[in-house]
Amino acid sequence: MTVAIVGAGPGDPGLITVRALELVESAEVLVYDRLVAPSLVAKALGATRIPRATLGQREVNELLVHHGRLGRRVVRLKGGDPFVFGRGGEEVEALVAAGIPYEVVPGVSTLTAVPALAGIPLTHRGMAAQVTVLTGTTADGDELDYERLADTPGTLVIFMGLRRLAELADNLMLNGRSFDEPAAVVSRASLPGARVIVGTLGTIAATAADLATPAVVVVGDVVSLARQGRALAWH
Amino acid sequence: MTVAIVGAGPGDPGLITVRALELVESAEVLVYDRLVAPSLVAKALGATRIPRATLGQREVNELLVHHGRLGRRVVRLKGGDPFVFGRGGEEVEALVAAGIPYEVVPGVSTLTAVPALAGIPLTHRGMAAQVTVLTGTTADGDELDYERLADTPGTLVIFMGLRRLAELADNLMLNGRSFDEPAAVVSRASLPGARVIVGTLGTIAATAADLATPAVVVVGDVVSLARQGRALAWH
Repeated sequence: MTVAIVGAGPGDPGLITVRALELVESAEVLVYDRLVAPSLVAKALGATRIPRATLGQREVNELLVHHGRLGRRVVRLKGGDPFVFGRGGEEVEALVAAGIPYEVVPGVSTLTAVPALAGIPLTHRGMAAQVTVLTGTTADGDELDYERLADTPGTLVIFMGLRRLAELADNLMLNGRSFDEPAAVVSRASLPGARVIVGTLGTIAATAADLATPAVVVVGDVVSLARQGRALAWH
Repeated sequence: MTVAIVGAGPGDPGLITVRALELVESAEVLVYDRLVAPSLVAKALGATRIPRATLGQREVNELLVHHGRLGRRVVRLKGGDPFVFGRGGEEVEALVAAGIPYEVVPGVSTLTAVPALAGIPLTHRGMAAQVTVLTGTTADGDELDYERLADTPGTLVIFMGLRRLAELADNLMLNGRSFDEPAAVVSRASLPGARVIVGTLGTIAATAADLATPAVVVVGDVVSLARQGRALAWH
């Protein structure tokens, strides 16, 4: 493999996988996301380290192809998991098109870490047998289909939903969801300053609006099992 | 913390997190799932090692409470992630009820690892903005609501869906999905003998029925991006 698309986990450097850490330590080129812990970036002792934040997606793709074609050990270190709202698919497509060998190393997704650290199981016997995951801000700029969303059983997990929280909660209620349905916002899970705020669809927008990003919104009965206050973090 | 509910990842020992490995290495009591790699269990050098397979869920809960109450460093090592179809919620409830301090360490979920290792992103710009995750075999023995499932946008991921694959595919088509809609089965991702079979709703049951478990079924346009044949595995 010359290019590895690697998940760094949700933020805490302890939540990177053993395999991912090995790849970072032996990288010659490291392209890393903004929320990757500085202590992980520092492990790439022999690598040219390139922050993703300075580049567009097309430039990232070109960089991976360029260094991969030269046979360098390239690690693309992404927050969370590369393939869950991580746009890893676009980077893989560019590598495939260029005929560059690649490897994908899955990571602890924010999707699973956030509920785990907040004490909210995504599914729970008798409460939720299904999880639906979406983003509050779609890549294509589409409106959310609130009527269908309100009619979706089980747990809803909304990435990047904080900015539209009031709109989201209001529209779920307008389409039949209860004012009293449990809802939570998990902010910066596993990062410094992690917070969980639990409320209901009727109250959550007012109580959680000032939380810091990144944040994930969880709606459904499983929220009633949440821990309140500080989320688990190891900092 | 006395009891840690820890995700071991999908099978490959390299996909455990750094934090989880530290906890396993210092455990005094280790209760581990059947699919956890023997090489990981072997890292718990100083621990009493108890296979989960010999116990019922109630016995597991009692064991965690018993050793936790004695102040022992207990690690409950679960396949995948504890809170995604992992029944970690039930174990946490037992610990909370008994007043035992606990920690949850999220793991790489089969949900994210399977698509990553098969080259299938769960979401992809212009293809799928939403993921719905469910089990083919519900804990409560409920029937799946195929009419609603067929009307769900985005990607469908079905855990433990292999045994009901023909029923699942037939009922999605009966409720309006196309014979030609891409569908895949990812078998034993990151475990020895990992396989990916890609087809359509109309063909997948016939071509994938003999795959080994654990297996995950993925339905949706993102499947068209899959690698075929052997899934990535590091064994």
